[in-house]
Amino acid sequence: MRFLPLLLALLASCASTSGLSLFGGEDPLASWADGEVKSTITSFVSEATDPESVHFVPAEERIAVFDNDGTLICEKPMYSQLAFMVDRAREYVAEDPTLREKEPYSSLMDGTFGSTKDIEAFIELAMETHTGMLDEEFVAVAEGWLASARHPDLQRPYTELVYAPMLELVAYLQDAGFQVWICTGGGVDFVRCYAKDVYGIGPENVIGSSGQKAFREIDGRGEFVRLRELVVPINDGPGKPVNINRHIGRTPILAVGNSDGDLEMLEYVAQRHARTLTLLLHHDDAEREFAYDDGIERALRAAGDGEIEVISMTRDFETIFQPAP
Amino acid sequence: MRFLPLLLALLASCASTSGLSLFGGEDPLASWADGEVKSTITSFVSEATDPESVHFVPAEERIAVFDNDGTLICEKPMYSQLAFMVDRAREYVAEDPTLREKEPYSSLMDGTFGSTKDIEAFIELAMETHTGMLDEEFVAVAEGWLASARHPDLQRPYTELVYAPMLELVAYLQDAGFQVWICTGGGVDFVRCYAKDVYGIGPENVIGSSGQKAFREIDGRGEFVRLRELVVPINDGPGKPVNINRHIGRTPILAVGNSDGDLEMLEYVAQRHARTLTLLLHHDDAEREFAYDDGIERALRAAGDGEIEVISMTRDFETIFQPAP
Repeated sequence: MRFLPLLLALLASCASTSGLSLFGGEDPLASWADGEVKSTITSFVSEATDPESVHFVPAEERIAVFDNDGTLICEKPMYSQLAFMVDRAREYVAEDPTLREKEPYSSLMDGTFGSTKDIEAFIELAMETHTGMLDEEFVAVAEGWLASARHPDLQRPYTELVYAPMLELVAYLQDAGFQVWICTGGGVDFVRCYAKDVYGIGPENVIGSSGQKAFREIDGRGEFVRLRELVVPINDGPGKPVNINRHIGRTPILAVGNSDGDLEMLEYVAQRHARTLTLLLHHDDAEREFAYDDGIERALRAAGDGEIEVISMTRDFETIFQPAP
Repeated sequence: MRFLPLLLALLASCASTSGLSLFGGEDPLASWADGEVKSTITSFVSEATDPESVHFVPAEERIAVFDNDGTLICEKPMYSQLAFMVDRAREYVAEDPTLREKEPYSSLMDGTFGSTKDIEAFIELAMETHTGMLDEEFVAVAEGWLASARHPDLQRPYTELVYAPMLELVAYLQDAGFQVWICTGGGVDFVRCYAKDVYGIGPENVIGSSGQKAFREIDGRGEFVRLRELVVPINDGPGKPVNINRHIGRTPILAVGNSDGDLEMLEYVAQRHARTLTLLLHHDDAEREFAYDDGIERALRAAGDGEIEVISMTRDFETIFQPAP
């Protein structure tokens, strides 16, 4: 029996490479590299679901929130909804060339638009492309775009460019009785178009930014008319805890983000329960995806001080994207 | 065997009186009187959950929305949140008698306040009693009031004055795989204080009116500060479909209300699917509860024309309230 340790080590190594866990069948987190982050996740979930554990959490309080762009899905060089808006705006200009003289179209066509930090210009573009139509018209346009658009570098539909480890994490949490919510700075209706099919997260569990709508009778039927006015607050930064409170009414025990816009959400979750899991995805893999620290500086500093755990894409993601279907 | 029909009739009559269904064990809707409304409900739910039925509805689309005050819980002579506001305002005046000279306090103390139709005065009173404090402070005050306040006529806690048939209907739908949501004109935080304990409906399934909140760091902790500003739209009338769209993102197949403020919600549900169940509770039982047509005129007329089914409290409720515990 003196070969047993070697045999076990060999088995473990094969299992890890093949996506099988040693004695437990398929590893539900096979796309995560073994290491501290993966074991922090599995310990947290095991304890939360173990009635014998002092860290047991009743099912109804097992709530997890995920940011969307950059956390579940690739956001570079342009996140999908921005690419959608740019494509729409170009179509409008093609239909009506006089728009070229008008903002936000002129800077868009000149190539001077594009910094998502210019929040005014960004909101103007969102209003132009998301309002002044019925809800059902918008959904049809967005679904059509999502079906046909391709990521400029990777030449795949945007909704395929979701992170395999995150998809596994969502399913792993749902299997463990968690309610998994998306809490996105993006537009709620746009993300709802694909959240169920792509992530297995229904529309009622998607919180996002939104324009106001009016419910009006048009030709004998009640319709949602999309108005040129924002629902306050925008779902970013301190707006995320506010909207989590509004939509969920209790504090999640687990939160995942990837930018400074997620920091208040992560801190809010970390502060409200004795035991929480707060994760910050750091895009540090220029070879397999993108590497950028822009817009995550505050969150990285906070992670250094406190409870937020950094996921390094290079170190912790065994696989980045799902294989093409 | 010629006595069989008589025997069956006798059995059926005993079963109905005792809350047992003829051959199926306990009747989950025992507080509903047998008749057209009850059988409409049970047929609708049976078909929606029967994979063989042409009217089968996948579980994720089985969504039901209930108004709260007057639909699930007694709202006369004053619904609980209004009684809460009046009690709070009186306490404020007791602490600071100079308030007596100021609206809304002066008309309240004079007894000239009280028509909930004066929406401006009502919002003013809501702002005075619901804002300018932290969220957790508000919840503590509301929970304290709910535990101690008594209905002026019936001398029971407000949260006991819920309709037994409606509690059964909520549980019956949940057992049939429905997501059951509350869609109340009342304040979301107030209703969330008791929705889980009283109805078995978690905070994430309560949609209501609300004030804006800011998430601010206070003494090193992120806090929700309750602001003197409304979240738009108020969750009443056409605001109900708008907020259902915002929170749920798909159209319910079942809706229950009791007033004109629920009419747009009922019509919205009825219009969007081939087969829906839309119910309007008519308070027509002065002997056992209250009888009033004020504020339900439009909805009753609409029910006469179309798909909305009227529940008559006199005819359809075998029992009104749960017995005192």
